[in-house]
Amino acid sequence: MVDGTRTEHLATWAANLRYRDIPDDVVQKTKDFFLDTLGCAIAGRHHPAVNAMARFAVQMGPSNGKSELIDGALKFTTSPAFASLVNGASSHVVEQDDLHNRSIMHPATVIFPAALAVAQDLKSSGEEFITACVVGYEVGCRRFHSTATGGVIGVAAATAHLLKLNAEQTLSAIGTAGTQAAGLWQFLMDATHSKQVHTGKACFDGIFAAHSARDGLLGPRDILEGPKAMGVALVPGDTNPEAIDRNLGVDFEVSRSSFKWHASCRHTHPSVDALLNLMKKNNVGFDDIESVVTRTYQAALNVLGLSGRGETVHQSKFSMGFVLAIAAKKGQAMITDFTEEDLNDTALRDFQNRVTMELDADIDSAFPEKWQGTVIVTCRSGQKFTESVEFAKGDPELPLTREEIERKTRALAIYGGFDDSSKVDEIIKRAWNLEHERDLRGFVF
Amino acid sequence: MVDGTRTEHLATWAANLRYRDIPDDVVQKTKDFFLDTLGCAIAGRHHPAVNAMARFAVQMGPSNGKSELIDGALKFTTSPAFASLVNGASSHVVEQDDLHNRSIMHPATVIFPAALAVAQDLKSSGEEFITACVVGYEVGCRRFHSTATGGVIGVAAATAHLLKLNAEQTLSAIGTAGTQAAGLWQFLMDATHSKQVHTGKACFDGIFAAHSARDGLLGPRDILEGPKAMGVALVPGDTNPEAIDRNLGVDFEVSRSSFKWHASCRHTHPSVDALLNLMKKNNVGFDDIESVVTRTYQAALNVLGLSGRGETVHQSKFSMGFVLAIAAKKGQAMITDFTEEDLNDTALRDFQNRVTMELDADIDSAFPEKWQGTVIVTCRSGQKFTESVEFAKGDPELPLTREEIERKTRALAIYGGFDDSSKVDEIIKRAWNLEHERDLRGFVF
Repeated sequence: MVDGTRTEHLATWAANLRYRDIPDDVVQKTKDFFLDTLGCAIAGRHHPAVNAMARFAVQMGPSNGKSELIDGALKFTTSPAFASLVNGASSHVVEQDDLHNRSIMHPATVIFPAALAVAQDLKSSGEEFITACVVGYEVGCRRFHSTATGGVIGVAAATAHLLKLNAEQTLSAIGTAGTQAAGLWQFLMDATHSKQVHTGKACFDGIFAAHSARDGLLGPRDILEGPKAMGVALVPGDTNPEAIDRNLGVDFEVSRSSFKWHASCRHTHPSVDALLNLMKKNNVGFDDIESVVTRTYQAALNVLGLSGRGETVHQSKFSMGFVLAIAAKKGQAMITDFTEEDLNDTALRDFQNRVTMELDADIDSAFPEKWQGTVIVTCRSGQKFTESVEFAKGDPELPLTREEIERKTRALAIYGGFDDSSKVDEIIKRAWNLEHERDLRGFVF
Repeated sequence: MVDGTRTEHLATWAANLRYRDIPDDVVQKTKDFFLDTLGCAIAGRHHPAVNAMARFAVQMGPSNGKSELIDGALKFTTSPAFASLVNGASSHVVEQDDLHNRSIMHPATVIFPAALAVAQDLKSSGEEFITACVVGYEVGCRRFHSTATGGVIGVAAATAHLLKLNAEQTLSAIGTAGTQAAGLWQFLMDATHSKQVHTGKACFDGIFAAHSARDGLLGPRDILEGPKAMGVALVPGDTNPEAIDRNLGVDFEVSRSSFKWHASCRHTHPSVDALLNLMKKNNVGFDDIESVVTRTYQAALNVLGLSGRGETVHQSKFSMGFVLAIAAKKGQAMITDFTEEDLNDTALRDFQNRVTMELDADIDSAFPEKWQGTVIVTCRSGQKFTESVEFAKGDPELPLTREEIERKTRALAIYGGFDDSSKVDEIIKRAWNLEHERDLRGFVF
């Protein structure tokens, strides 16, 4: 299929990738994100949306599967489609999972839950699992700008890889995944739970796509570029189709994904970093600040404008003003820094009202290759300071160290009420030795 | 919620509808479409796409559920989500299920499989089932122009009704359904199986939405009209939002749906009827015809232009030229009239090439309230004939009689290799007495 469409080229590459073809730094980074995602799933396992989805799995799925479901209220194993439906939700709900800069998508929260559940079902090895996850990142992040829509095709490709489908079947899996692509953002306006539905369903639907492709269900052959396909329908005006299969096997999308250090929408991170740097450098305190102007890119304005003042903890993480207020007051914006009490804190709400966002043409033109931010702080004293960051903490150019990832994982586990620290030690050890694992069960159980 | 959004109004109505509120003609029509859909599911149960989806249900679902799965290769009961996943596919694949004119959607193939599977699971009565199906038609057909996207919210509403959710929970179910709405039409270009994936997944996703709403998962409150919701994203430019809750309980969408008499895309039906009338009136035979011009509406041109010459039986049903060739040669276009051999019939293919479609401004402006068609036939003798139909056979204004529905059902069952005619008699009898049923199991088993 080398002379075929870009989608055929991508599917062929995905079917044929072998562990030995993956550079070691990509393997290591994949393990970093895997552990990072497990921590997120543990942290999110008590959320009501996760619990509701787990109850659906109990009612509609089998109770004798091999895949482990990470839910706070229930502990059971089921089929991979249902385990990943729930784990895709739990790993996304605390907003601490990774972000792939160029595609503006969260790959980890869909790729790892789906590939882990399928690998547990098939008794795949650590090497096979890593390879499937790398495939999932490649297919998911190459072009589309949404966790749900890019995610479902990434999951289909990763699952197809674990099922050892050939190129033709992989193409069908990607096609059937793409035809189900969905994920409207209306939820952000009223603080409802769809964001977790999107990731969980991307897992489920992608697993469905790959399994049904194996069993003879044909998917459209050109779901990325065809005239009635994802490109035209979901990203009208996109003029970069060559990204679909450019430098396959040379550049790896895993290397372009970013950790989230702060526990808020990733679009707030450059401004948080800039503000924290500014306050430290100039010895400015929370109470000294009269107003903040953040200069950012259009995509940030689009997303951060939707959630109003933030009526819930989750929604408040999408308010630039509130996130900067938390960071300014607490000196950081980690998962434990966003609480119910903070939502009613008058000082924080006042600060929030004194933050404005402005479009910056230079920052906008560099986006999404670079996620930059500038903040301009006016103090009550009349003093004015400006600070910019070229990269946010966690960006590919400024990644977390393994020690920081371990610290973050432990914090996430505690947040999720998972107080067995020796089990967390074991999870961390297994993650760092993932390529030597022979069976991926028991990661949380 | 009476003073709320249109979506809230619709959800409140859906939650509160009772069997006694439904006019008898609507009840009778609902039973007509129910039997019609069962026949379609039996006819489609051997299709490879259906079999692949059934194997997914076997692998990922439980084997001890109460809902019956209509598949040719496997006979088992499972959870309602999986039973309807498969039955939503089998009831759509032979292209004989109903068509709701104004919304251009196929409601029966999603509403009945989902509501039947849930009703079997809950042991709902015939009256409760009919009420839920009427709710499903109302919510699904009120505005959106696609079986998959309108279907999933209809299924959510029907399921919510059977689960006896209140208005607030029903609103969540509709919201969670809508945020999953998907269904790209790329499949038509290469004769792949996505059309069945769309209907089956609409069932699954809608059942998920209603169950998770019951268990506390919040869906967006204004998924139909909100600024990041279905209206803006899926039907940009639609200026008819008041249709969402107009005349609820007065006009019923069930009454506006059409049977498919011919076994082809519904957009070909007005032309087929006009051609058959013309040939009969003027004593014109297949071999007499030099060329055919069909004058139609833009939506027909959009859909029927996608499938090329039709390389498979399914795809050939979307070619106006091929469908008219079959009708002209065989005097009808029933399910048994489309065969593999016909695809290689030179006379049919030649006829196909001599059919052209033209946009007719008057017909277009009346669409989709009226599905009209005009054909102009030029004979080899030089004679020219024109014939128009205002309604196609099966339209609300020209519905099938119960005798015709029974005939169609028996033909569909034979096509599906279901040769137990006494069981078909029983199914027909049960359908006509549906409101008196106390348990909806055993309809096909």
